[in-house]
Amino acid sequence: MGDNFFTIKFDNGQLLLIDQRKLPISEDYFICKDYKDVIFAIKSMVVRGAPAIGVTAAYGIAIFVMQSDNKDLLLNNFDNVCREFAASRPTAVNLFWAIEKMKEYFYQIKDKALSQIKTLLINKAHQLYDDDINVNRNIGSFGSTIVPNGANILTHCNAGALATAGYGTALAVVRAAWSGGKGIHVYVDETRPFLQGARLTAWELIKENIPSTLICDNMAGFLMKQGKVDLVITGADRIAANGDTANKIGTYSVAVLAKENKIPFYIAAPLSTFDISISSGDGIPIEERNEKEITNVFSERIAPLGVKVYNPSFDVTPSKYIKGIITEKGIIYPPFKKNIKNLLH
Amino acid sequence: MGDNFFTIKFDNGQLLLIDQRKLPISEDYFICKDYKDVIFAIKSMVVRGAPAIGVTAAYGIAIFVMQSDNKDLLLNNFDNVCREFAASRPTAVNLFWAIEKMKEYFYQIKDKALSQIKTLLINKAHQLYDDDINVNRNIGSFGSTIVPNGANILTHCNAGALATAGYGTALAVVRAAWSGGKGIHVYVDETRPFLQGARLTAWELIKENIPSTLICDNMAGFLMKQGKVDLVITGADRIAANGDTANKIGTYSVAVLAKENKIPFYIAAPLSTFDISISSGDGIPIEERNEKEITNVFSERIAPLGVKVYNPSFDVTPSKYIKGIITEKGIIYPPFKKNIKNLLH
Repeated sequence: MGDNFFTIKFDNGQLLLIDQRKLPISEDYFICKDYKDVIFAIKSMVVRGAPAIGVTAAYGIAIFVMQSDNKDLLLNNFDNVCREFAASRPTAVNLFWAIEKMKEYFYQIKDKALSQIKTLLINKAHQLYDDDINVNRNIGSFGSTIVPNGANILTHCNAGALATAGYGTALAVVRAAWSGGKGIHVYVDETRPFLQGARLTAWELIKENIPSTLICDNMAGFLMKQGKVDLVITGADRIAANGDTANKIGTYSVAVLAKENKIPFYIAAPLSTFDISISSGDGIPIEERNEKEITNVFSERIAPLGVKVYNPSFDVTPSKYIKGIITEKGIIYPPFKKNIKNLLH
Repeated sequence: MGDNFFTIKFDNGQLLLIDQRKLPISEDYFICKDYKDVIFAIKSMVVRGAPAIGVTAAYGIAIFVMQSDNKDLLLNNFDNVCREFAASRPTAVNLFWAIEKMKEYFYQIKDKALSQIKTLLINKAHQLYDDDINVNRNIGSFGSTIVPNGANILTHCNAGALATAGYGTALAVVRAAWSGGKGIHVYVDETRPFLQGARLTAWELIKENIPSTLICDNMAGFLMKQGKVDLVITGADRIAANGDTANKIGTYSVAVLAKENKIPFYIAAPLSTFDISISSGDGIPIEERNEKEITNVFSERIAPLGVKVYNPSFDVTPSKYIKGIITEKGIIYPPFKKNIKNLLH
């Protein structure tokens, strides 16, 4: 994205991913030599962020196809490999969306010669990659219209270039508002336990010279009460038909605090994040991750041995707390059920 | 406290403090050889927690007196030393309360022989220490009456034995309810940035075999929404005349989330935490601490170089979010202004 780094890059048959477990201390690239490496990268959060894992999975499927020598074997194994990708993370629907896109396309072209299938599949992954960046630029354009001049924007987790093929979703709005000369400032929730805010969002914003201040998650409410926040924007991992939104753990709390302090709370997400097969947020599966994410920070143990831990990676924000959902086709306002349906059809 | 550790212990002219910067990784005692060491211990959070720093300052003043060889010099310097203690932390009022108690007593007995003043002052500090534990046991007795059987109690920061001379305030209620056979379970907010929940509260509860689960601060809201929390109890650093309460950063957010989810939110604090000279929470000074508390976790850097940080150590919870304030004289309910005044007089 012109920021001296890339989140995802297909190069010479391999997939390079900036290793988000190590940022910002080191800027290393994790090299996926085969599709198994890609699955490992998604599971272990080398790459994270709903749109980014979708695009990554698309490349992973393409790499599997490119490394196939035998078409019968490919046809036999293709669905299993797609299932392996689908099992890599449970909450973000963009992952399943991207897998479905690749699968549909594969079955459309499966009668062609193997060499041709390979070329077409990698081109399809490239297209999803390019589409994602274009979608995000449109999210930025629509979103920047709701950003007041000089606004203090609070964001949670990382919905930036690192969470997408590039440009971001919530941070697309920030980037577009900033480049439009709105003179904004961003408060960044550190976002325990994985620290996506402290490690990734703060890093992205420093790279772009966008003024920002890092806080702990439990400080956001006090900032709001002091009148220091004008607007909250976060990304999303899955949005139900009624607008209920699963996103990084802590988003629900930020939304409740915003409502209590009469601060507008927006979601920024591509249409691939909507899952209208699910009527409300209650139906969204919430991933629980390893307790070590909480008991340890990098190599440092911070909790006593024998401690019991609960580590849900996401929560669901009921749509009543959401002022609008910023998509590549425009901003969706309540009534969400009706307006989501209208925009998707 | 019979738990194989002590928070504060005066021994052979020195003050021993369990080093709360190092818990739970190591259980070291920091030795204060003179009053300057005691001030350092308060400033650097070797010891923390409003009642604990009050008692610690009382011992610090007693140590200063005990190490005085010349009565004229003592009389000349006493007020300055008290001012140095008062400048060590700005938010918790128990510190100023304890200093005032020591000062009042000193001026009552200042005409006595130096050797007698020394004995009386250290005995006064011992008395404040003993009083604190007795007060906390009473807080526990009153507080346990509002704990339902089998309750899931959420607490923030550490208002335990480590935050007091012993037994705790919020954790006094937990200890009393547990020993009364109520079969409770405690959710512990890790409490960034200093991690008093993960490092101290979790450690105390494990030592007492009280069932507990550690969570990140941003998970508390989601737990409440899922119906997993029956009751919230925290400590306090200063309570204004109208019941507005300064406590560890993040308390305000927990209180708002509790209200939104119709969960009772209680403060547990001794009467020495009330500051009726301040009419509302707006008048309570909020300490801001070093940015390294946020950018680093022990020796690990977690944020990019050049990041700007905001690190308020406390916030103020308006009394409208508080169901009751549990003190050693009973539980104060709204209207707080009237009922606080009545209880204090």
